[in-house]
Amino acid sequence: MSQTRGKFISLEGGEGAGKSTLLAGLRACIEARGVDLLLTREPGGTALGEAVRGIVLDPALRGMAAETELLLMFASRAQLVRELIEPALAAGRWVLCDRFTDASYAYQGGGRGQPVERIQALEQWATGGLAPDITLLLDLPVATGRARAAGRGEADRIEVEADAFFERVRAAYRARAAAQPQRFRVIDASHSPDDVLRAAEQAIAALFEAAP
Amino acid sequence: MSQTRGKFISLEGGEGAGKSTLLAGLRACIEARGVDLLLTREPGGTALGEAVRGIVLDPALRGMAAETELLLMFASRAQLVRELIEPALAAGRWVLCDRFTDASYAYQGGGRGQPVERIQALEQWATGGLAPDITLLLDLPVATGRARAAGRGEADRIEVEADAFFERVRAAYRARAAAQPQRFRVIDASHSPDDVLRAAEQAIAALFEAAP
Ligand SMILES: Nc1ncnc2c1ncn2[C@@H]1O[C@H](COP(=O)(O)OP(=O)(O)O)[C@@H](O)[C@H]1O
Ligand SMILES: Nc1ncnc2c1ncn2[C@@H]1O[C@H](COP(=O)(O)OP(=O)(O)O)[C@@H](O)[C@H]1O
Ligand SMILES: [Mg+2]
Ligand SMILES: [Mg+2]
Repeated sequence: MSQTRGKFISLEGGEGAGKSTLLAGLRACIEARGVDLLLTREPGGTALGEAVRGIVLDPALRGMAAETELLLMFASRAQLVRELIEPALAAGRWVLCDRFTDASYAYQGGGRGQPVERIQALEQWATGGLAPDITLLLDLPVATGRARAAGRGEADRIEVEADAFFERVRAAYRARAAAQPQRFRVIDASHSPDDVLRAAEQAIAALFEAAP
Repeated sequence: MSQTRGKFISLEGGEGAGKSTLLAGLRACIEARGVDLLLTREPGGTALGEAVRGIVLDPALRGMAAETELLLMFASRAQLVRELIEPALAAGRWVLCDRFTDASYAYQGGGRGQPVERIQALEQWATGGLAPDITLLLDLPVATGRARAAGRGEADRIEVEADAFFERVRAAYRARAAAQPQRFRVIDASHSPDDVLRAAEQAIAALFEAAP
């Protein structure tokens, strides 16, 4: 008997939008339904991906070229999809991922100006075009997110970018959400954590109905 | 006054072919001509590249997907070209590199079966198509190279591959050399280190004549 494929949910948004906070709340809500859930993140998730994450976020590697960053992100992603996400979905598990390919369109595309055709080609090679069933975009003014994230200790190599960079990231996220309304749910992340969680629960409710 | 662009020489070949040994000998020969020479290697060369090298060669990361390996190699290469090789050549320095893009065609292409069109696309993005002026291919039967390399201590993640893998790598290198005879010089690496160095010196002699 073939296993029903699991559902794939990704969380996206700028620094301090509340992705990690929401991840914990959503996890409880999904697992309360008896779903076997894999939590993971990008860059990272696998042993290889976490090593790549260490490189990508290392503040000492300031001179990293945009092309290099893009290739590293997709190296981590190619491994994550093959090693964890695809096997989990095939086994009927659900996957909740803190960032996925949309982040490359937003950060390396919008933020750093890497051409969208290049990102699309890498997406095909690295993931076979695997897309989440639902992507929750936590949308927030840049200043609000930065103020929230400021409390987290030393800034990593990406967090030190200028506001203009994060404005481009936000705009790219919103444009992608507008272009793919069937997959994206945009959540106003300026609300309280409880309100954000409630909105996220509503946004993914349809996934449970679709399940057997 | 515009600076004459430097010359770019790469060394290729399988494990134990004698690339690192030749690098030292060639360096002395080139510097004796008064040339300002940058020595570097792949994967590696830059701080970022050496960190990527640590990942790529880590025997613990046995499950690394071929796609992941390919992307990591080009991430290191994109950085090396921008940070070291292009600035050096532009400043009139010569560059002697222990492996370059041909190694991806041989190892990730021939060895791991990654499609050549994918490698070509990555080459354009990562290096802008930058090719060495001369590539010295140290050609050697697989068994001979493995016997030489065996003395070097614990095998890395690529060195543990089966002979069939290295036969494919060797065949891919030879096919590339045959297809680009104006750039490649194939050197019989089964000869003594002195003979290999002499052959290499002859192979690059034309570069000095072309210099001002
Ligand atoms: N809805 C919210 N309202 C106010 N503060 C929040 C909210 N969600 C998260 N935070 C706080 O903002 C900071 C960043 O949240 P975090 O979940 O780490 O964001 P992200 O993972 O998107 O960078 C944390 O200190 C967190 O407690
Ligand atoms: N021409 C040669 N004949 C015999 N042994 C060699 C020759 N060139 C190198 N070696 C030895 O073979 C081993 C591998 O050489 P090395 O230069 O490290 O190869 P590579 O860098 O291509 O893997 C070393 O122990 C080296 O001393
Ligand atoms: Mg987070
Ligand atoms: Mg060597």
